[in-house]
Amino acid sequence: MGSPTAASLDEIRELLGLLPGPDDAAAAQAAAREAELTKPQGALARLEELSAWLARWQGRYPPRLERPRAAVFAGNHGVAVRGVSAYPAAVTAQMVENFRAGGAAVNQLCRTFDAELRVYEMALQQPTADFTEGPAMGDAECATAMAFGMMAVEDGVDVICLGEMGIANTTSAAALCHALFGGAAADWTGPGTGVAGDALQAKTRVVADAVELHREALDDPLEILRRLGGRELAAIAGAVIAARMGRVPVLLDGYACTAAAAVLHRIAPSLLDHCTVAHCSAEPGHARLLAAIGQRPLLDLGMRLGEASGAVLALGLLRAALACHTGMASFAEAGVSGRA
Amino acid sequence: MGSPTAASLDEIRELLGLLPGPDDAAAAQAAAREAELTKPQGALARLEELSAWLARWQGRYPPRLERPRAAVFAGNHGVAVRGVSAYPAAVTAQMVENFRAGGAAVNQLCRTFDAELRVYEMALQQPTADFTEGPAMGDAECATAMAFGMMAVEDGVDVICLGEMGIANTTSAAALCHALFGGAAADWTGPGTGVAGDALQAKTRVVADAVELHREALDDPLEILRRLGGRELAAIAGAVIAARMGRVPVLLDGYACTAAAAVLHRIAPSLLDHCTVAHCSAEPGHARLLAAIGQRPLLDLGMRLGEASGAVLALGLLRAALACHTGMASFAEAGVSGRA
Repeated sequence: MGSPTAASLDEIRELLGLLPGPDDAAAAQAAAREAELTKPQGALARLEELSAWLARWQGRYPPRLERPRAAVFAGNHGVAVRGVSAYPAAVTAQMVENFRAGGAAVNQLCRTFDAELRVYEMALQQPTADFTEGPAMGDAECATAMAFGMMAVEDGVDVICLGEMGIANTTSAAALCHALFGGAAADWTGPGTGVAGDALQAKTRVVADAVELHREALDDPLEILRRLGGRELAAIAGAVIAARMGRVPVLLDGYACTAAAAVLHRIAPSLLDHCTVAHCSAEPGHARLLAAIGQRPLLDLGMRLGEASGAVLALGLLRAALACHTGMASFAEAGVSGRA
Repeated sequence: MGSPTAASLDEIRELLGLLPGPDDAAAAQAAAREAELTKPQGALARLEELSAWLARWQGRYPPRLERPRAAVFAGNHGVAVRGVSAYPAAVTAQMVENFRAGGAAVNQLCRTFDAELRVYEMALQQPTADFTEGPAMGDAECATAMAFGMMAVEDGVDVICLGEMGIANTTSAAALCHALFGGAAADWTGPGTGVAGDALQAKTRVVADAVELHREALDDPLEILRRLGGRELAAIAGAVIAARMGRVPVLLDGYACTAAAAVLHRIAPSLLDHCTVAHCSAEPGHARLLAAIGQRPLLDLGMRLGEASGAVLALGLLRAALACHTGMASFAEAGVSGRA
């Protein structure tokens, strides 16, 4: 595929009407093969579903897992000045350097599961505007961030793991979720990198006040993204769209990443059918968000790091699933008896 | 370590008094390093616990994961004549051939996560006795099977994934659990390879009748194993003991494997402290069993295949945990700021 660009959110809206659906024939081929393999029917359960999902959304049988990519988008948030994070905003850029130097968790995970890591730094010296005072981004700014995210889905990438780095972005994620799905601000606001007590109460008020400020936009998910999101979150939403266009199944990471993708779910639930949420984060809003978008996470290990760490960890499960699907013998090939 | 042998269950009982405890100093070294790595404290959660667990039970820091082994024990059960399985007993030997030829799920998983696979075939042409009529094994027979299992823990193996293959062995597992932990036979009896309806009710009656027949032995876990277990399950219990002696942390697989290990838990809960249950099987008794022995599974993917498949899948998580622990930069090394 080429590199989609968009100068406005209206162009993004047009793109959404052009996205391909599932390849049910490829998924049926996967299911047919699965039934012949030397195991009781369904005994590999979720691993079998993963193989079929891969075929369905790659639109090919057998599915392929030769060039998985982890794409980590980094952005800074104006709302960080409100003291919503346990860490200073400078950590975003410092962690980008750490990714480049190979010292972060995601580097080790990409090595373990043989994924290519790309880190996309998004104007870290110019944070988005503080969304407690106005929209985080202008229309073109948000659309450009989405288009930037789309470019991570390059030709040849066959699965993409999405993740983020951005001090204060669980505040943005909480505001997105509160705006998209209602409830109370406290339902969606959690410790993030580690705020508690009064600081957590203050963070919750920031989320409540921000959503109240932007209440006239709550019917329009892309407007919610523009007003309450951030560049790295807009980029994730863009990457999800481009992945659908390019027939690249997506593993979504934790709370902030899923919140970004959930913007598309609010537009139409089927827009995330090519996505699987890799894990349930310890950030308390994530389980609620997963329920809201009807996703069952693959892993639930209490992780809450972001930076695509859960998505790349789940890539190991995807590799295992495909290895079983393509490598196992059938009952006939192995001379194993069927049911008595 | 040498190759422990035992000619009687009393010799096994003696061994149990000689097993080493944890190396808390090695675990403390792991925790100290973990606190310096470039992530919010505790953000890798269960992965951090796995690194510390590995250090604690290997008794070394840093822990090592150079030669993980998957050991699959295969045995046949006299109780199979009661029609408790959806598959004929001949499948046990056929699947052993499939393991040898590389065609089973566990072969693909071992390739994916770089584990050495050993398959231990245990007199498949001579099933154990039908435990609805008398003890499955004699004392020496059970002790020999345990000693056979111990030999799977060879020098140089640094983690062992245990699993089993044996038509009818979820019936044996259900009988073990019912005998070890009480409740009703129906609490512990499930579809196994796929029995349902009347066949499942009949299987449940087999379990209930067997435990009733052996009721005078219910205070003695090793007697329960001898009377209601099978060779491959006794071998797993033996391997768990030898792994403790040899400072080799254990990943336990699904229902039958965990039931075998639970015999030791009934003797003393600490006997399983060097074991982590890899996943929660779809076999309904497994969740109950995990609660009974106080284990939190790493994965919950609906799998119910046995043959160490869940244990080897979890080995991928262990590899990821150790890669993060040993490969990540510290805050100081990476020049990343700490908490604000």
